[in-house]
Amino acid sequence: MAQTIASDLEYSFDGTRMIGRRFVPVGAGDVPGVLVIHAAHGLGEQVLGCAERVAALGYAVLAIDLWGERKQITNPAEIGPMLGAFNANPDMWMGRIEAARQALIASGNVDANRIAVMGYCFGGSSSIEFVRSGAPIAGAVSFHGGLDNVGDDFTKAGADARVLILTGSQDPLASAADLARVEAGMSAVGLNWETNVYANTKHGFTEPDRGPRPPFAAYNAIADRRSWSAMSAFFADLFAH
Amino acid sequence: MAQTIASDLEYSFDGTRMIGRRFVPVGAGDVPGVLVIHAAHGLGEQVLGCAERVAALGYAVLAIDLWGERKQITNPAEIGPMLGAFNANPDMWMGRIEAARQALIASGNVDANRIAVMGYCFGGSSSIEFVRSGAPIAGAVSFHGGLDNVGDDFTKAGADARVLILTGSQDPLASAADLARVEAGMSAVGLNWETNVYANTKHGFTEPDRGPRPPFAAYNAIADRRSWSAMSAFFADLFAH
Repeated sequence: MAQTIASDLEYSFDGTRMIGRRFVPVGAGDVPGVLVIHAAHGLGEQVLGCAERVAALGYAVLAIDLWGERKQITNPAEIGPMLGAFNANPDMWMGRIEAARQALIASGNVDANRIAVMGYCFGGSSSIEFVRSGAPIAGAVSFHGGLDNVGDDFTKAGADARVLILTGSQDPLASAADLARVEAGMSAVGLNWETNVYANTKHGFTEPDRGPRPPFAAYNAIADRRSWSAMSAFFADLFAH
Repeated sequence: MAQTIASDLEYSFDGTRMIGRRFVPVGAGDVPGVLVIHAAHGLGEQVLGCAERVAALGYAVLAIDLWGERKQITNPAEIGPMLGAFNANPDMWMGRIEAARQALIASGNVDANRIAVMGYCFGGSSSIEFVRSGAPIAGAVSFHGGLDNVGDDFTKAGADARVLILTGSQDPLASAADLARVEAGMSAVGLNWETNVYANTKHGFTEPDRGPRPPFAAYNAIADRRSWSAMSAFFADLFAH
């Protein structure tokens, strides 16, 4: 595991300022890059810790600020409207992630031809959607992404993009029917996908059970460890081939 | 990767002599054990190579000889009757694997409380069936196992056993319906399973396309690499917890 250095990285899209956080391995030359997209609560401590651990694998990482101004959502009632605003405006949704991708490249130390995206919950949905939008990225990893927020027309996706979906068997935001629908959409264009399903596992399985959580979400230690190793090996394989 | 030493290991069940091959890391004390079960063609070079690589991960491995007398099947017409004989006689099927488990333990250098089983094609089916039979093992990994050969009543399975199913989306021997049926059977008793599905992947994806193969089987480099790393990380996690 490499040591990493961290700094805030500001970028913007359509007048909104976003304050991401960049982590790079100490002394790295141009290494593969990874965009890390937060869950509904915004770019907070938990996902920043994940982003740092990804950078320690040897990648230039930008933990992106999808909501803008590093907004944190603490009131659960705000989540639905926020996700709805992004679902209703794909140009904003994808535009903000693309702005983050360009900011990561401009910040240096990164091989622009080897950039992937990963995310948690809505950030997982966003990662798959970013592939679906035709963004020039190598691959995407979704941790308990809400698949109800993911379309199934992948005709714009890059032919070589690879997608890894990590999901719980008891996650109502990623039903077996939605999983099959998204898989079929990717298969229809020959996209190279992989899905890992964890038994006895609810939504949000990587996140600790601190504070109130909805009844359909819970930490799962096995799924947390298994998904982390799946992602790590996936990136190693993706960036080597 | 540890260096390994190899030797044939004979054992028997119900009058049939079986000639397995044992691989252990050089200089190892008592390490976790792994039974490796061959595909329909028998205990040949390809699976022996896999078993050696598993041992190099730090495990005492027995590549078992399910057919007995190290029989190799070269005529595809013999496969159906052989699998049929085992499907029709679960006592023989499970008895031979249990005999291998006991032979591995008796051969030394192995922690009898940390033994798992893995296998390819019919050996994958056999691995899951071994869990289902209630065998005292920690976990099972199935590589492109024929799920049509796997039952769905897991009430005898050990509560802590973990199962990892690695399968191709285009494998007719592991249809989505059969996968869902087996998953539901494991879920019904709370078993800790995980399934990894690889896109664009047929049956037998770990095996090189040497010689004639049925049209539903083909090597897939990505699925081969991904399944190997999934198994490696699974065993590391299983034996550490």
